[in-house]
Order: sequence, then structure tokens, then C-alpha cells
Amino acid sequence: MTKSRLEAFSDGVIAIIITIMVLELRVPHGGEIASLRPLFPVLISYILSFIYVAIYWNNHHHMMQAVRSVNGKILWANTHLLFWLSLVPFATAWMGENHFSKWPSIVYGIVLLMNAVAYTLLARCLVSHHGKDSTLALALGSDGKGKLSLVLYGSAILIAFFNAWVSFGIYILVAIIWLVPDKRIEKRIEEEEEVEEHK
Amino acid sequence: MTKSRLEAFSDGVIAIIITIMVLELRVPHGGEIASLRPLFPVLISYILSFIYVAIYWNNHHHMMQAVRSVNGKILWANTHLLFWLSLVPFATAWMGENHFSKWPSIVYGIVLLMNAVAYTLLARCLVSHHGKDSTLALALGSDGKGKLSLVLYGSAILIAFFNAWVSFGIYILVAIIWLVPDKRIEKRIEEEEEVEEHK
Amino acid sequence: MTKSRLEAFSDGVIAIIITIMVLELRVPHGGEIASLRPLFPVLISYILSFIYVAIYWNNHHHMMQAVRSVNGKILWANTHLLFWLSLVPFATAWMGENHFSKWPSIVYGIVLLMNAVAYTLLARCLVSHHGKDSTLALALGSDGKGKLSLVLYGSAILIAFFNAWVSFGIYILVAIIWLVPDKRIEKRIEEEEEVEEHK
Amino acid sequence: MTKSRLEAFSDGVIAIIITIMVLELRVPHGGEIASLRPLFPVLISYILSFIYVAIYWNNHHHMMQAVRSVNGKILWANTHLLFWLSLVPFATAWMGENHFSKWPSIVYGIVLLMNAVAYTLLARCLVSHHGKDSTLALALGSDGKGKLSLVLYGSAILIAFFNAWVSFGIYILVAIIWLVPDKRIEKRIEEEEEVEEHK
Repeated sequence: MTKSRLEAFSDGVIAIIITIMVLELRVPHGGEIASLRPLFPVLISYILSFIYVAIYWNNHHHMMQAVRSVNGKILWANTHLLFWLSLVPFATAWMGENHFSKWPSIVYGIVLLMNAVAYTLLARCLVSHHGKDSTLALALGSDGKGKLSLVLYGSAILIAFFNAWVSFGIYILVAIIWLVPDKRIEKRIEEEEEVEEHK
Repeated sequence: MTKSRLEAFSDGVIAIIITIMVLELRVPHGGEIASLRPLFPVLISYILSFIYVAIYWNNHHHMMQAVRSVNGKILWANTHLLFWLSLVPFATAWMGENHFSKWPSIVYGIVLLMNAVAYTLLARCLVSHHGKDSTLALALGSDGKGKLSLVLYGSAILIAFFNAWVSFGIYILVAIIWLVPDKRIEKRIEEEEEVEEHK
Repeated sequence: MTKSRLEAFSDGVIAIIITIMVLELRVPHGGEIASLRPLFPVLISYILSFIYVAIYWNNHHHMMQAVRSVNGKILWANTHLLFWLSLVPFATAWMGENHFSKWPSIVYGIVLLMNAVAYTLLARCLVSHHGKDSTLALALGSDGKGKLSLVLYGSAILIAFFNAWVSFGIYILVAIIWLVPDKRIEKRIEEEEEVEEHK
Repeated sequence: MTKSRLEAFSDGVIAIIITIMVLELRVPHGGEIASLRPLFPVLISYILSFIYVAIYWNNHHHMMQAVRSVNGKILWANTHLLFWLSLVPFATAWMGENHFSKWPSIVYGIVLLMNAVAYTLLARCLVSHHGKDSTLALALGSDGKGKLSLVLYGSAILIAFFNAWVSFGIYILVAIIWLVPDKRIEKRIEEEEEVEEHK
């Protein structure tokens, strides 16, 4: 089975998710600069989530480049990831509207955590389909960044019970860690190509 | 006529349908965990419909892989399917907001039934275009799963007049039956390829 | 310049237009069958507009198949068509909410008329780019169907000042005329292919 | 890394942005022609923004045609542009609802300015990736049109403090300047092709 429609469908869903979040920036009735002030926390959480969804698209793009074919299991692992991504706009809006208070920050963390779990599951399905010695498997390696994220999300959820602002800081930190695109895969593909050229 | 734009357009529409459903998860004003409670039935019906729309995308994807070309009739059969899929978000939201009460559950069942009918019609148009002996025709075979679904939807609609929860259980059951991707087509394509290799 | 991104962008915009119309089917608060009654005219106008937008996608698809390349002027003629298509959801919702009364029916007719004009302009740009003797030019021919539609829309707009239901009937009539896909282009492409095979 | 998914994702996001703006044209309750009057400024700002977003898609399309491959930095420069484009619907709606008053016009100008800055950054990333002597670099040249736009947006923002209508006129002026598609790139590609054919 080819990967092209999986990519097209994922691109479509992620494009919609990243764009509908902006609908939560509700147009204020007044035309004064002061009428924008209540939108400030909504904007901040929008920016953070925009970056998160973009990171997922980016890494999805990188990972799929090393993919040769897909099967039914992979389609469902991908759909599972899209489901958790689709909850990001809701969690973002709730956190933004409640000024980063306790429960919204916890729910936001849980949604991010589940996204990370779903992404890891998708990566595993892809690796088991391509084999332990595939470009993809070697490129993903021990996935230290992924494991670190899971630990950080978990901590942020627990910390939110005491101080939601610290959690928010951790969410920003994880985003920064991932902003650098996944060089492992890019590198590995280049190495493979060099090796192939030498043959 | 090539199938590529048909696939692209269907991917686009299905991606939007699956994503706009999440807009019914309206952001609560309060920031307490209790403010999420009224959203619980909405979330449950969202999850069920997300799975249903994903199943349709998945099966559409599988079926289209065995398709060689399309004609005007097929374009309209596909549009007809997209129409009924586009009513899923409405039926989902109505059922979620009314806690799976009688009429919303009946309407939900009717929409699912019409989707199944539209999918069957599309399959028939494809088969009559490709011929009785095509890979597609042999792969779809007698379509026992499709017929069973039609019967189950019909029963669920009738039962909803007496107990909407039983109907809801049947909708979940049909989803589970379909969650396994359509191995028939995957298998048949592989066999064809093997046969071709032998020649 | 290749036509692939023009097709992809148009598919995306048309897919969104056809899907956001369903958002006007607002979920009623009550769970009784009677709460669906006010939605009936909204549903009727949704179905008509769904068919109209699908017709445009269909004909766009057919016309683009005979297209070899595009230029800047064609990109803008296409954008102009997408603009008028984007007003269809608004006109549909206004007509549906006001039970096909005078002004909404007039505005709906104007939007349909402008869509037809924009489509004709796009066709002319394509013909002038491909030459008078191209497959496309010969296939479109005198465009009797297109001219008839313009006359019918114009009449329907005028008639709506006296009786909006007659106008609504004309809008349905035009949709039926177009529901048959544009055989002219399909036929012409096949003939061309045959001629090429003979050489 | 190939550019195809970058194009597909950008097409998706831009298609959604250009279409959701129409949702701000809220359906009036009354069915009289007078009920459309308050929508007039919303429609005007919708048309202007529709043209702006279409210009960006158009120029993005033109620029990407001269692109051979992309890297991680380019993906993020592109995401940055999509972020600022995603704020256009909000700025448009606020300006439309407040009849082109001071602050909404300033914010609209800032969003347009940031879009232009993001586009310029994307162009620079592309040039530095393809080299100073690439088709792309030569085609973009000194980018006089881009620089002029930045100056005009800056002036419009300042002028809005005194007279928002003049600013609005400048926004229209910049749109007109750009409505002509970027001939530089089209020309340069054609020249390159001619040179290659001569070899």
C-alpha cells in the first residue's frame, strides 16, 4: 500500500486543526485597543499550540520520508494520532480562556502527553513494518527526545496541581526542544544515500 | 478519467468533516473540572463518529487502490457518499447534546444507514465500470460485512423507539466489525500481483 | 506553469465550501422530532447548494483534464470563481433561514449567476491560452448549456420579485440540467486519443 | 527533502484561511434587503483580504516553482508565514465590524506587514539554500516590489492614527501593485529553459 493518500489525508486534517484554532480568537465588539486585552492569553495559548501542531506536522513529514509502504495497522495508528491532535484546539481554547488556571493546564498537558504517546505508537508500528535494520529504525534510534518529552509532560501535569504557570513553562520548554527538526532522520537518509552511491 | 482528483477531493471533504465535529466540544466558561462534565456525552459521540468517519476514509482508500479509472456516474456516486458523511457531524452533535435520547439516536442511525447505502452504491458503480471479473469485483465479493451492517443499522433504528442505549450499543458493535481494515481487497491485490509476477 | 497546484488549491477551497455549509444546520436544543422541523428549509437549501458546488467541482474537474498548462491570468480567473463559490454558503443559509422569501432568493440567484459568469470567464481564459483549435476549445464549443443557465438565472432573479418559489424551481431546474456531467469534453478527449492512436 | 508535502500543507492551510473568513459574514435574521446593509463593511474587508490571501498563494506558487528542494529551516520559515496568514481572518473581521476605525486598521496593517516580513524571510531562506546564482535568486533580484510594500504598510500604520480611511486606501494600493503576478520568476524560468535548450 502506498503512503501518498495517508500523507494527503494527514496534511488535510493537520491543516484544518492548525487553522480552526484561530477561530477561538473571537472578534471583540469594541474597536478600542483595550478590547484586545482579554484576547491576550488566548493569543499566547494559540501561538504555543500552533507551534506544537506545526512540530507534529514537521516530524510526521520527516518520519514519512523514510517510510516505504504502509499497512492497515499503520493507518489506524495514524488516525489515533490525528484524534489526539484534534483535541488540541479545545484544550488550547479552554486554557486560554481561563488564564492558565489549574484544570485547563492539566487537561492541556494530558492532551499533549497523549499526542506524544500516539506519535510513539505510530513510530513503533512503522518500525515493526519496515524491520529493525531499516533506515527508519536506525534513524529513530533510542528516541531520547521522545522519552524526555513524555517525562516532562508527566511532570508538568503533576506540577499543575500546585502551580499551573510552572507547567506552562514546561510546555514551552518541550516545544523549544522539538523546534529543531529531527536531524537524526535527515542525517540517516543522507548517509544511506551516500552508502548506496558508493556501491 | 484518472482517479487522482477524486481521491484528493474526497480526502479534503472527509478531513474537514472529521475535524469540524470537534467544534461541537464547546469550550466551557468555568475553569473547574466540573465544567467538563456536561461535555462527556458530546465527547463519547465525537469519539464514535470520529471512528466511523475514519472507517469510511480507510475503506474508501482500500477500495480506490483497486480502481483503475472513473467516469461521471462514479463521480456522482462518490459525491452522494460525501453528502451523507457531511451530515454525520450534525447527527453526532444532536445525539451528544441530548444524552443519547430517542429521536437523536434514530436520526444518527438513519444517517449511518444512508452512508452505508451510499458506500454500497459507489462500490456497485465501480464494479460495473471495471467489469465482473476485475480485481475489485472479486475482492468485494458478496460483501457480507456490508449487508450485515445494513441489517444492524436497520435494527438499531427500530430498537431506538424503545431503548436508545441498545441502539447505541449496536452502533458501537458495527464500528468494531469494521475497525479491521478490508483484508479482502488487500489480499486480492497481493494475489493478483503474484499471479502477474508468475507470468 | 503546471496545473497541479491550481487543482490542489481549488479542490481544497471547494471541499471546505461544500462542508462548512453544513454548519448552518444548527443543532437544536430539544431532543424531540419536532425540534428538527425549523431545520427543514435549511436542509433543503443545503441539499440544493451541495449539488451546485458539486456540479462546479465536477465541471472544473472535467475542464481541467483537457488543460495542458496555466498562466497568471488563468490563476486569477480561477481565484475569481472561488470567490463567488465562497459566497454560496452565506446565500444558502440566508435563503434557508428565511423560508425562500423574496430578497434572499434574489441574492441567491445573483450569487449563482456570478458563479456562472466567473466559470465562463475561466473557460475563455483557458481557451485563449490553448488556442482556438485546441481539444478544450472544440470540446466547449458554443457552450449552449452555459448560455441557457445565464438566461435562466437572470429570469429567476426577476421573477423572484413576484414569486420566489418559481425562482427556486428554476434554480432546481438549472441544477438538473447540469447534473449530467459535461459529455462534450469527455467525448472530445476520447476522439482526440483515437485520432492520435491512428497516426 | 522534496517540496511536495510543503506545497500540499501550505495549499491546505491557505485554502482554509481564505474560506473561513466568509464565516464572519453572519447570516442576518431578517429577510429584508435592509438587513444586508450592516454586512457591507464586512463584505468590503472580506473582498480585500480574499485578494491578499490569494496574492500570497499566487506568489507562493510562483516562488515554489523555482525551488528544487527544501530543508528544516525553510519548513519553519514557511510555518511562520502561515502563522501570520492565519491572523488575517481575525484582523479582517475586526476591521469590518468596526467600520475601518483607528485601532482595527492599525492591527490589520501590522498583520499585513508581518505577512510581508515572513514572506521575505522565506524567500531569503530559499535563496540561501539554492545559492546566489540560482534561478530563484536571480529571479527575485533586488525585490523592489517587496521593499515598497514594507514601506507602504509602515506608512499606512502610522497614518491610521490620524485617518484610517487613507490607510485603507494604501492597503488597496498595495494589493493592486501585487495583483500582477510575479513576472520576474516566470520570465527567468523561461530564459533558463531556453538557455538549457540551446546547450
